[in-house]
Amino acid sequence: MAGKVEQKRKELTRRLIDIGEARIAAGGIEQIKARDLAKEAGCATGAIYNVFGDLNDLIMAVNGRTFIRLGAHVTAAVDKQKGDDPVETLIIMSHAYLNFAQQNTPAWRTLFDLEMSTDQNVPQWYLAELEKLLSIIATPLTRIFPEMTREDIMLMTRGLFSSVHGIVLLGLEKRISAVPTTKLEKMITLILRNLAK
Amino acid sequence: MAGKVEQKRKELTRRLIDIGEARIAAGGIEQIKARDLAKEAGCATGAIYNVFGDLNDLIMAVNGRTFIRLGAHVTAAVDKQKGDDPVETLIIMSHAYLNFAQQNTPAWRTLFDLEMSTDQNVPQWYLAELEKLLSIIATPLTRIFPEMTREDIMLMTRGLFSSVHGIVLLGLEKRISAVPTTKLEKMITLILRNLAK
Repeated sequence: MAGKVEQKRKELTRRLIDIGEARIAAGGIEQIKARDLAKEAGCATGAIYNVFGDLNDLIMAVNGRTFIRLGAHVTAAVDKQKGDDPVETLIIMSHAYLNFAQQNTPAWRTLFDLEMSTDQNVPQWYLAELEKLLSIIATPLTRIFPEMTREDIMLMTRGLFSSVHGIVLLGLEKRISAVPTTKLEKMITLILRNLAK
Repeated sequence: MAGKVEQKRKELTRRLIDIGEARIAAGGIEQIKARDLAKEAGCATGAIYNVFGDLNDLIMAVNGRTFIRLGAHVTAAVDKQKGDDPVETLIIMSHAYLNFAQQNTPAWRTLFDLEMSTDQNVPQWYLAELEKLLSIIATPLTRIFPEMTREDIMLMTRGLFSSVHGIVLLGLEKRISAVPTTKLEKMITLILRNLAK
């Protein structure tokens, strides 16, 4: 009996994440409302809170999937690289990040819409996925700066991610302070090429 | 008579911008509501729309003042620089930007909260203020890269601004993907020092 209950719970969890993922892909975090989710999943609203602590947990589960898709997208782009110049690797990664953000804007935006810091109760699996993503950047950086301490490489990794994120964010929002969208790739290339001359 | 009407109009405009500025400084863009503004200014709600096309115009006027304060803050920091190494100048500017964002978070945030692109009807004075801000960055960049074309300098300027903005944004939001706040200055220094080796 306990096994059956557990299995139903797992099924509902997956169904809710599937629905949440589709809703976020369509319209972002605003599309996550308990009543709508329950209706689409064919369960009572209260049943959602039997499997998730709150809706943030559900959004985090969707973000976990987005992380994995983003990581796969970036890795696939790097796999096509000719040669192994690490600066080129960073440029390819950044272009892939821009491309992913353009093609998955609501899901990408939701990664940053959740108010969350390490001070709060962030689950271990989430931090692990994030570390995995950041380590993709750290690898070429370590080759560019072989003498840098591990702590500085960590700072450079997060700083470089934040930099490219800033360019993509202001660029996609078409802020007047940003570069024109068509120039974003060139912009990223210019910045990164000069980073490690 | 016309002169008196015009003067009253100017007074109300300034009073409304003063009130808007104080409200944004206290709590950001959400604090800008026509009814509250009218009450505080001692005018009818409709009178606001006699001097501003809509509330966005009022927020833009406040943003114009924030631009000027930001520019003054950054320029004052650069004026204290010892020597004239242009990479050092960029680092000082970026630290000043971080510092301004920390000390004026709601006003700084409001600069980016307004949905706006050059496709829309952005007033000439606003674009001029923005250009003035960006030219502060372009000056040391031109010294670092004397052979770069004007177009590339323009791209680098906006890209560099977006990069530092990304670091400050993710850093101040204490996102788990960002660097710890205490490390932000070092992070910016590392990125910029390596930009122009």
